[in-house]
Parts: sequence; structure tokens; C-alpha cells
Amino acid sequence: MLGGIEAGGTKFVCAVGEENGTILNRIEIPTTIPEETMAKVIGFFRIYDVKAIGIGSFGPIDVNEDSPTYGYITSTPKTAWKNFAFVQAIQEAFDVPVGFNTDVNAAALGEVTLGAAKGLDSCLYITVGTGIGAGAIVQGRLLQGISHPEMGHTYVRRHTSDHYEGKCPYHKDCLEGLAAGPAIEERWGEKGIQLAGKQEVWELEGYYIAQALMQYILILSPKKIILGGGVMKQKQIFPFIYENLKQLLNEYIQFPEISTDIESYIVSPGLGDHAGITGSLLLAKQALGN
Amino acid sequence: MLGGIEAGGTKFVCAVGEENGTILNRIEIPTTIPEETMAKVIGFFRIYDVKAIGIGSFGPIDVNEDSPTYGYITSTPKTAWKNFAFVQAIQEAFDVPVGFNTDVNAAALGEVTLGAAKGLDSCLYITVGTGIGAGAIVQGRLLQGISHPEMGHTYVRRHTSDHYEGKCPYHKDCLEGLAAGPAIEERWGEKGIQLAGKQEVWELEGYYIAQALMQYILILSPKKIILGGGVMKQKQIFPFIYENLKQLLNEYIQFPEISTDIESYIVSPGLGDHAGITGSLLLAKQALGN
Repeated sequence: MLGGIEAGGTKFVCAVGEENGTILNRIEIPTTIPEETMAKVIGFFRIYDVKAIGIGSFGPIDVNEDSPTYGYITSTPKTAWKNFAFVQAIQEAFDVPVGFNTDVNAAALGEVTLGAAKGLDSCLYITVGTGIGAGAIVQGRLLQGISHPEMGHTYVRRHTSDHYEGKCPYHKDCLEGLAAGPAIEERWGEKGIQLAGKQEVWELEGYYIAQALMQYILILSPKKIILGGGVMKQKQIFPFIYENLKQLLNEYIQFPEISTDIESYIVSPGLGDHAGITGSLLLAKQALGN
Repeated sequence: MLGGIEAGGTKFVCAVGEENGTILNRIEIPTTIPEETMAKVIGFFRIYDVKAIGIGSFGPIDVNEDSPTYGYITSTPKTAWKNFAFVQAIQEAFDVPVGFNTDVNAAALGEVTLGAAKGLDSCLYITVGTGIGAGAIVQGRLLQGISHPEMGHTYVRRHTSDHYEGKCPYHKDCLEGLAAGPAIEERWGEKGIQLAGKQEVWELEGYYIAQALMQYILILSPKKIILGGGVMKQKQIFPFIYENLKQLLNEYIQFPEISTDIESYIVSPGLGDHAGITGSLLLAKQALGN
């Protein structure tokens, strides 16, 4: 049996499951302070005999195994979690291998193994919710360089009609600052879910997301793009993304994936809301294999 | 002995060399029409007994080995070369393994093996010249997804003082449209080399390149960034890139590579003008190994 933790800014999902990704039991724990949340996490796994634990965490995190702070959550704005030694906390409680990556990289791993990108060696998983983040599988492996990707902060060009200043504390009007859930709420005065019928909201959202996708495609050339997260449950965004992306690329890139079948290329998660926790179980499996 | 071809839009460089990348002999051949240029290329290699040939080509090219047009130059604006079966032309003349990738991916391979990124498993090589293109090594391998990267066409935000419309036939004012050599010449009325003393030219150039680097860093997190090509011989651009990039990232990403030693992180090619041809020899070596 394997353990998985999908550590989000609002809640932690913990699960136990099998090596094939099947979830046997799962719980949700609110994200408060590390002492409190982690006590509950550890309490959950005490019931089971897990052989390894995989963590897909909110970030930024240190994924560089040669670094003295490997396994830490680093410069997060959630101050109670800043410099929290996540991997170490799990290893102190359980003497098992621990896999550690970002929540979005875990989701990308889940989707490429068992979800919408099954059978491919490459995909991009983007979450649009409280924040915007992305994980990627490149040539069969989780993308990593100096660190993990931070794609949510890519710059986009403003729509000429959009005068909202942007909400990112670092960059103001980067993609996350203009298009994540809190930006939608602040710009339009209501939560996204209450704006479902207001076409201009989703038209603008599609305009910004398409720009980011263009950058990701030009740079990574992923074989499948998966858009998850709370905001992307507003499925009416997808046609605006398709339309804007085609205009932006302007046939410079002539992949049949984009020109003839974009609805199959840019999709919702095949695992629904379970992409992240399934991927965390798969991170446990990888850790066991190492 | 190995053969390498660096196929550029203006000239082809052909070389023979050793498996360690040492160049033994090289020639330059003007890029005219395939019949003429290729006859000279083949004539050069006839003199030698090469065991494999590596091609680093201008693009777009088809690098997908499962595709019926693998080995072709595809939708290039250089019409004589459109749909040219490059790998096939070489294999008809020489019965040896042929490696095939973009010129910039070849240069990235050269730099990571023997140049400025030697010893690392990740780098980004960008050329700023007649066009803008980039190649990348990710976790030790040439980056590839559906196709090779096309990073030169990433969108940047215009400088408010820049009213030049942009030169890209597909996107007008993408990075290549605003910052490649022909855009510099059209905007300022002289070739870059004649504008060396004009600070505002290089300040604007650094402004645009820094934006693209920000996108590349957020998405790929490369361990070294190498800026080559004719325009980057204007070394006065580098300080403007460093300054703009730090402002853009605004300490969101806290890598010592960027915060304390950016001059060692974003550099000129270690192999100078030989990055592409050296990488092409290394592509030959890879092809021999497969």
C-alpha cells in the first residue's frame, strides 16, 4: 500500500492506494499551521502500513536533491509554512521512502499515467484556481531544471479594455495576477461561480489563458494540454481559448493536434479532481522504485 | 571520423571531426537552392570516410521519427527549401546513420557537452540574428515534444516608446518580429553593427530579450542560458538584460544563479561561433550510438 499527500493552500488531501493508482481511502484536512495539519496527516497514515509516501505540494518548494533545503516549502506567501521541512517531517514519523514534487507536477504525472494524456510521453497540466500553476512531463519525465516550473507567472499582454491592475504581489499583472480566481473576483466584484452566465468574464479569461498556452506550446511543444482547477470548471472558457490560440499562432505552427483537433488537444483532466492525489500516489511509487 | 552540417538560412557550415567534438576541417557553402547547395555539401563529405553525419538545420523541421515527413524542412519561408527531404538526401549519398535536429538544438548540445554549460544537465541556447530561435537540453536530453521548440516567436510586451510595427510575417510584433536583426535594421534605419554606439538601441533590445528570458526561466528553469548569434556580439546588451530581468522577476524566483551571479548564468557561447557545428558533430555521434 502507498500513501499520497496532495498539499494545497486550502486543504490537504491524504490517500492510501495501490501501485496502479487506485485510491482505497482518502480524507481532507484543512491547511492551517504545520503543527496542526501535519499531526492530522500523520494520524491518518498511522492507521495503514504504507511502503512509501508521495507528496505533491503547493510551492515554491525545493526539489533539488543536492540542496541543503531539499524537501522544504520555501518562499511561500503562507508564512506559517515558509521553510517548512515537509519531507523531513514525514520521514521522522514514517521510515519509508518519500517522493516530493509540486502539486501540479504530481497532477501532470497522474494525467500522463492514468488520465487524459495516458499513453503519451509528454503533457502539460495547468491549474487555474486560487493561483495558476503548471506541471509538465517532458520525454516521459517530470520537468525539472534549477527548480520546478513556475509557469503561472508568465507575462501576458493586457486586453485593451481591461483596466484591472492585477493581483500578483510580485508582478501585479502577470497571468496569475490577471486570471486566477481572486483576480476574477476582484475585477468583476463577484466570485467566478456567480459569474457563470456573464460571457465577457470568460471571454477575457480565455484571452489571457490562450496567450499563456501559446508561450507554453512554443517553448515546450507538449503533446497534450490539460486545464484543471476550480476556474476551469467553467467549461464555457474552452471555446474562447481555442479561438484566441488559433488567432495568436496564426498557422505558424502546423500541428494537426492544433489545426484540426484542438478540442482533443486542450482538455479537462481525465482524472477529474483526483489528478493531484493520484499523481501523489505515483510519486510514492517512484520513490519506492529509487 | 564524423560529419556535421550546420544548415543556416545564409550559409551551410560543413565539418569533419572526431567523436570528442574536435573539428578537423570545415567549409562554408552559401545557401542557395537545394540542388546547388547540397551538391557542394555532398562533394565535401565525399573526400572523407565519415561514419555518421549530424545535421543541425534551420527550420521548422520535422524531428518526429514516426512521421512520414521525418527529416524534412517543413514550412520555412525560404520557398526553395520547403518540404526538402534533408535526411533522405544525405542518406542517398552516404550509407551512414544521420542525426537530425534544429540548428539551435545542435548548438545547445554543443554548449552542454563542451561549452559554457559543460558539466550541467540543462541549458538553453538562444540565437539572436536574422531570426530568433532557441534550443534546450532538459535533464540531459534535447527538448522535444510534438516538435522542437519555436521559442523565438514568444510574445513580449511592447515598450511604450516603441512604435515599430514588427517584422514577423506570422505575428508582426512577437519577439523575433521586434528584436531580430532585420527588425533592428528596419526600426533604426541602419544595421545593428553600425548602431554599436547608440545606447537606446541596445537598451530596447535588452528590454525585449529579458522578457523572453523570464518566460523561458519560469517554464523551463534552465541551469544556464547562452545567448549567441550575430546580434549578441553587441556585448553592451548583456547589462540591460540583467537589469530588466531582475526587475521583471522581482525576487519571485530566488535562485542564487540569478540573484547573486547573473553574469555567470546568462552568458555568451563557450564555443563562440562553433557551437552549432560542434553540436552537429555530436548529433552524428548520437546517431552512431543509436
